[in-house]
This record gives sequence, structure tokens and C-alpha cells, in this order.
Amino acid sequence: MIKVVVIGAGNVAQHLILAFQKAKEVQLIQVLARNKNELTHLLDSDCITSNFSQLEEADLYIIAVNDKAIQDVSSQIPFENKLVVHTSGSTDMSMIHSKNRKGVFYPLQTFSKAKQVDFNTIPIALESENPTDYIILEKVAKAISNDVHQINSVQRKALHVAAVFVCNFTNHLYQIGETICEENQLSFDLLKPLIIETADKIQTLSPNEAQTGPAKRNDTTTINSHLNFLKDENQINIYKTLTKSIIDNGKKL
Amino acid sequence: MIKVVVIGAGNVAQHLILAFQKAKEVQLIQVLARNKNELTHLLDSDCITSNFSQLEEADLYIIAVNDKAIQDVSSQIPFENKLVVHTSGSTDMSMIHSKNRKGVFYPLQTFSKAKQVDFNTIPIALESENPTDYIILEKVAKAISNDVHQINSVQRKALHVAAVFVCNFTNHLYQIGETICEENQLSFDLLKPLIIETADKIQTLSPNEAQTGPAKRNDTTTINSHLNFLKDENQINIYKTLTKSIIDNGKKL
Repeated sequence: MIKVVVIGAGNVAQHLILAFQKAKEVQLIQVLARNKNELTHLLDSDCITSNFSQLEEADLYIIAVNDKAIQDVSSQIPFENKLVVHTSGSTDMSMIHSKNRKGVFYPLQTFSKAKQVDFNTIPIALESENPTDYIILEKVAKAISNDVHQINSVQRKALHVAAVFVCNFTNHLYQIGETICEENQLSFDLLKPLIIETADKIQTLSPNEAQTGPAKRNDTTTINSHLNFLKDENQINIYKTLTKSIIDNGKKL
Repeated sequence: MIKVVVIGAGNVAQHLILAFQKAKEVQLIQVLARNKNELTHLLDSDCITSNFSQLEEADLYIIAVNDKAIQDVSSQIPFENKLVVHTSGSTDMSMIHSKNRKGVFYPLQTFSKAKQVDFNTIPIALESENPTDYIILEKVAKAISNDVHQINSVQRKALHVAAVFVCNFTNHLYQIGETICEENQLSFDLLKPLIIETADKIQTLSPNEAQTGPAKRNDTTTINSHLNFLKDENQINIYKTLTKSIIDNGKKL
């Protein structure tokens, strides 16, 4: 049984805790959180500490805190030569304090406390300083996910940037869609089947095959009519930017 | 039994044909297509004509052709005082020739020939010149969908603009994600669970509640690191535009 400690109490930490609680070959022995109350709905309070000096010995320490705190948190772990990983898409492995063996355990998903996820289907990108540590990381990752990958630092950064486009920016476009609906006394529910189908399409078609709409057809009449309809300068700017990008992309094909 | 004729052979026409074939209270009696061969995989060739003079009498003519052709096609229907609708999100009802009774039958979905959809869950936005015609349109729409709405022309245009943001632009962001993956020897499959979860999240959370990422946190370190990573000027421009929009939106809340 591999003994794991999670450090952190945020979205990623909480979803990892839930996943490890269901896993068979991994034992979550302790969680460190600045504020124990944030986790008492998930764990016995005996398993939670807010004090680094009370950290127990484990096979793996997973630091799931915000990127800026990784370096400091890793330096406070009161052990040496332990396997310590962070869960960040955009932080270099070298930010982990060098007294311990370094690695990365990056689950590629968007986590909100209010919504459960099926960890089994979440890709986990692993990286380790030492090849033998990779074997431990892989066992832990495979205990909670069927989609585990060895990914180097440059690729991980690429994945993180790509994730910002397909997740964070996409969600912002949903928000603009909601705003346009609200301004016209329409329920955002009207757009939800379209949003699901748009995401579902690219599970089987390439995004290029799936592309539809006035920009794809270079339909300047509809594009101009939409630009006349929009009043918000920011919405107009985004509409123009993405329409131009779709049209230019079509010319390249 | 309401008799319906569909005019067109594109994505929307083909999905409507499939939906009407399963409907109980609607009889699809004929389809008009310039090229009959495009539809012979869906229909007996007896039911297809490419000649307006052979159009049969029906209770409803649904023009599902590209926006620019609606006016011309509607003028070629060799009947008067029939109910004629188009399926366009962005075309005024008045573009239908005035010799017939006008309406709109707009299914809010992204259709590709290569992918089946469940029409039952697709919102259909209806509009009619005459209140009595609305009753016919509603019966036909409810025969294929559980999500039927009366929506005026301004609202329909708003829906269409919103759909461009949440569908066409979103799909383009997926394409950028795919490009970044390919450039770094990563499979686009890695992003697919994230894409599904991002769409799934806003079925129960508002887009504002669902927003995550460096722009939401105003995490300039990560944002600058991503901008340094990107080399394509267009990708950089889109990254900056959407990041600024998310940050500005956060300031308004």
C-alpha cells in the first residue's frame, strides 16, 4: 500500500482527497491544510493537520496549493529524500525544494468544489526527476485514473496553455452568450444543448471538420449584421478577433 | 396529419428529414433539392424533386437552404397563401415572398452530416406572421422536439449571435488547442475530457461560477509565462484579448 499525504485544501486538493478515498492501492494517511475546517466535511479531523511539524512519513507528498505557494510549502516539509510532487500545469518541477526527490502530478481537468467529477477519465500528466520515482507516481495515478501519461515540462506547459484556450476561454464565451441572452429576455438554457453538442462533436470529428457558422462560410452579410447587433465594445472586439482567425485559418487549409 | 415539404439538402435539411421521418403527427410528403442524389440515402427518390413546378400541396413548406438563397427560393414556390417558413437564425421573416404566409422555424443546434443528433432536446424558436399559423408551427415543432419557444425576430438574432460565441468561436478555440497539442507531440485526446467537463459544468453552474484559470485569478506570472510560450501572433492576440476580457469582467462583479 502506497502511503500518500496531500498538502492543500483547494479545488484540486479536495477532488484528489475524494479520489484517493475510493482508491484501493493507495492510502491517504494525512492532509495538511492551513485551515482544518475547510476539510472536515471530507475527512476525520484526526487525519488533518495544519502544522508541518506534525506531518507523517509517507511514500508521496502531493502539494496541491496555488502556484505561487509551491516553493515555500515544499521547503517546509520536515523530511529529506522523500518523493514530493506538485499538481500545477505551469510550474517548473525545479520549484520544489531540492532536499527532496521532485516530481509533477498534473490532473488535466477543471475542478470546482460545487461539482463532482469522475477521476477515472481525467488525464494525469506525470513527470519525475528519477526513473524509479516514476514507477511510484504511475501506481498512484493509475489507482485513481485510467488515463495516465508521462509528459515532460515543455509538453506540460503546452497542455496548460491549450487548456486555457479550450476551458477557461471557452467558459468565458459561454458567459458572453449568457449576457446576450439576458439582455434579450432569453433563458441561457436555450444555449445549453448547443454547448453540449459543440463539445460532443469534437470527440469524434476534428475541430476543423466540426467548424460551422458565418466566419467558416465567410458570410460577410451575417457577420456585419451581427456586428451591428452587438453594442458592447468588448464583445465586438472578441467577435472581430475570432471571426478573422477563423477566416484566416480557412485560407490556410 | 400535417403535411410538410422540406426544401433543401444541406445539414439542417437532412437532420429535419430524419426527425420528421420518426414523427407521428407530421407527414413529410416531399423534399425539393437541386441535386436529388444528395438525398437518396435518406428518402425514396419518388419523394424527391428538383423542380419547383412539381412541388406538391402541403400545410407547411420549410425552406432549409443557405441564408442568401431564402428570398429567391421562396419566390419560386408555385402556390399562394401557403405557410412558408425558413430555418435561419439571422434572416428576417420578411425575406420570404409575400404571396405566402410567413414564418420562421429555427432549430438552435450545430448540424454536421457526419454526426447524428437527438432532435428531441433541440430548442426550436418559432415565429409567425399570423397567430393561427403559430398553432401549426407549434404542432410540427412539438412533433420532433420537447423544447419549443415563441421567439421574436430581435430575440432570434440575439440567439444567433450568442450561438456564434458559444458554438462557432468555442469550436475555433478547440482547434487552437489541437494545434498547440500537435506542435508539442501531444494527442488532442488529452484535452477531450476537459472540453466535455467545461461544457457539462455550465449545465448546473453559471458560467461565472464555473470560471477558473489564470485570468480569473489575475495571475500575471502564469499569464506572462503563457504569452512567452506562444509563438503564433494570432494565438497571442486571442490569448491577450480573452484574458483582458475575463480580468475586466472580474472587476465588474
